[in-house]
Amino acid sequence: MIEVADYTKLQQVRQWTVDNHVDVTYVSNFHTISYLTGFESNPYERTLALFIFADSEPFLFAPALEVEAIKEMGWPYKVFGYLDHEDPYALIADHIHDQLTDPKVWALEEGNLTLDRFTALKGQFPAAHFDKDLSPYIQQLRLVKTPDELKLLNVAGEWADFAFEHGFAAVKAGRTEQQIAAELQYALMQKGIMEMSFGTLVQAGEHAANPHGATNETQVKPNELVLFDLGVMYKGYASDASRTVAYGQPTDKQKEIYDVCLEAQLTAQSAVKPGMAAEDVDKLARDVITKAGYGEYFIHRLGHGIGQTDHEFPSIMAGNHMSLVEGMCFSIEPGIYIPGVAGVRIEDCGVVTKEGFKPFTHTSKDLKILDL
Amino acid sequence: MIEVADYTKLQQVRQWTVDNHVDVTYVSNFHTISYLTGFESNPYERTLALFIFADSEPFLFAPALEVEAIKEMGWPYKVFGYLDHEDPYALIADHIHDQLTDPKVWALEEGNLTLDRFTALKGQFPAAHFDKDLSPYIQQLRLVKTPDELKLLNVAGEWADFAFEHGFAAVKAGRTEQQIAAELQYALMQKGIMEMSFGTLVQAGEHAANPHGATNETQVKPNELVLFDLGVMYKGYASDASRTVAYGQPTDKQKEIYDVCLEAQLTAQSAVKPGMAAEDVDKLARDVITKAGYGEYFIHRLGHGIGQTDHEFPSIMAGNHMSLVEGMCFSIEPGIYIPGVAGVRIEDCGVVTKEGFKPFTHTSKDLKILDL
Repeated sequence: MIEVADYTKLQQVRQWTVDNHVDVTYVSNFHTISYLTGFESNPYERTLALFIFADSEPFLFAPALEVEAIKEMGWPYKVFGYLDHEDPYALIADHIHDQLTDPKVWALEEGNLTLDRFTALKGQFPAAHFDKDLSPYIQQLRLVKTPDELKLLNVAGEWADFAFEHGFAAVKAGRTEQQIAAELQYALMQKGIMEMSFGTLVQAGEHAANPHGATNETQVKPNELVLFDLGVMYKGYASDASRTVAYGQPTDKQKEIYDVCLEAQLTAQSAVKPGMAAEDVDKLARDVITKAGYGEYFIHRLGHGIGQTDHEFPSIMAGNHMSLVEGMCFSIEPGIYIPGVAGVRIEDCGVVTKEGFKPFTHTSKDLKILDL
Repeated sequence: MIEVADYTKLQQVRQWTVDNHVDVTYVSNFHTISYLTGFESNPYERTLALFIFADSEPFLFAPALEVEAIKEMGWPYKVFGYLDHEDPYALIADHIHDQLTDPKVWALEEGNLTLDRFTALKGQFPAAHFDKDLSPYIQQLRLVKTPDELKLLNVAGEWADFAFEHGFAAVKAGRTEQQIAAELQYALMQKGIMEMSFGTLVQAGEHAANPHGATNETQVKPNELVLFDLGVMYKGYASDASRTVAYGQPTDKQKEIYDVCLEAQLTAQSAVKPGMAAEDVDKLARDVITKAGYGEYFIHRLGHGIGQTDHEFPSIMAGNHMSLVEGMCFSIEPGIYIPGVAGVRIEDCGVVTKEGFKPFTHTSKDLKILDL
């Protein structure tokens, strides 16, 4: 259960419902439901839904076995359950009709609702209009984090720093990437941090040159670089950070790539301020790498938003003209991946403030040389 | 990368495309793409797509940083990449038009494709018809597992048994549920099993009476029941199993609940055979529990399908008249949850064979009493 939810956000979506002349707003994304109500649960193939009305109280609709948890959480409005053999959309229609005889204008989360569910809903309300999209408004709401959310993101970042410390300590010749990931995750679990925000990446030597390769049985060898990319979930909020360390002495080439990548990261990070365009942050980092001759090896965007998930808006990349505002949170993660040589990525997530970019992770970015 | 993919399945979908007079079949679910091509990758908010044509070769469309991995895997057809700042649906339209000047009839995965993506696609092909749904056919294909898939499901089950063994050994007074989960996951990770198929549940005493509660800081106390529900991912296939054990001597009431739950589980499991209706399996287990007076405490369906995910078709519940056929895989998991007393769930996943239900997990279901 996240602690930051307050019904202010729910009230804002209700106001949006009024302002947009919508009769019913249907929230289908479980992350959005968590954000608006504080009830966090992935329903998988079952249906979890929040309905918000212009003129009456909202209600939750949930699998029967979640209803008690919703009530215990203190949800002050109605909650209706359904059993596995029941038709959720028929029940939803009944509950909606109890509040509104003829709901005409609906808003949906078009970025989340699947076509089959849309068809089921339309079948219950054949005369309604479904042309209002709630997704952009939710994106915009979630884009700027509240002080309570920032507290959780900072704590999630502290646990990523903790994980780096234990991960670096676990690097030993002959150990596999998987064994190193096991050690750092075990250290976290012993402290009650049970969920990573994504599969931990530990990649050694040449293997790190594949930016989307997985952690596998590759053994760490002396005098190569080891890339860590990891994050945890803390009370519904994610961290995500990358560090690349040297196990023994790096070659001049490896050191050069590292220095270029670090310069790109620091250049972008120190330039961030409110009012700047997202794409300009990407360009600053990219220009450093391109000027050094490695532009072709930096093959992804500079960054992505972070909050309840490790990949959300905004995208820090060419083509995104969005102006940064205070409270936006995202990653700055340039990378250089040279097949046969090494892969380097250095990443902090942080928040835009008046004084610039404040990272959530604080593990040193000077090239760390681990003893053999 | 899963090993079971063979292009037979892809060929079957192509035949379906021909048989249904479809020009283009658009596969959007990354699990389906993995199933048909062997390329397993969650694209998150990016676009990963497979296009299958009646009259020409299929192609994959993927984020640029996945293209190399797809080629290395030996994908024999075309793959096109896109960069983060490019519009994927405009590029997809270009590639489609290279093969077909005027694709009129499309099939979509309606159970996966979101409304916004559907709108983007429709924007590129305004004159096309999108009224064919591929999802039911894929469900049906995935419902019956091949011998290769069964091998992986059995191995995934063996790792769940391994996890139970280490989890039971970790139960000690004062240890928290989280610490016990940490021990069993660490044991798995040391063997290279890095991913659970869902968040491991360890629930002690009264806490287990909440069937959807999470593993938390609750400490194990002597003479109470401890419920384990866990599974791993093995080469793209999931396991899922539950055992409830006693830490010290259970009360008569706890023992009674356990015995009823076990009888329900064994009754259902031993009755499974091809031709039986899914809902009848549920009823057999439910009748045992109802007859014993605990019907109101068994508040979920008996089971769910398993394969590439831990929750897929078929659903073993009232209202599902589907006939079981050889090769279908699902869970049998009755549960009795009595607030203030205990929660018991006993679960095996397995496959329907001519000789009956063959479970993937083999940890004993006799009530195990752990020494204090």
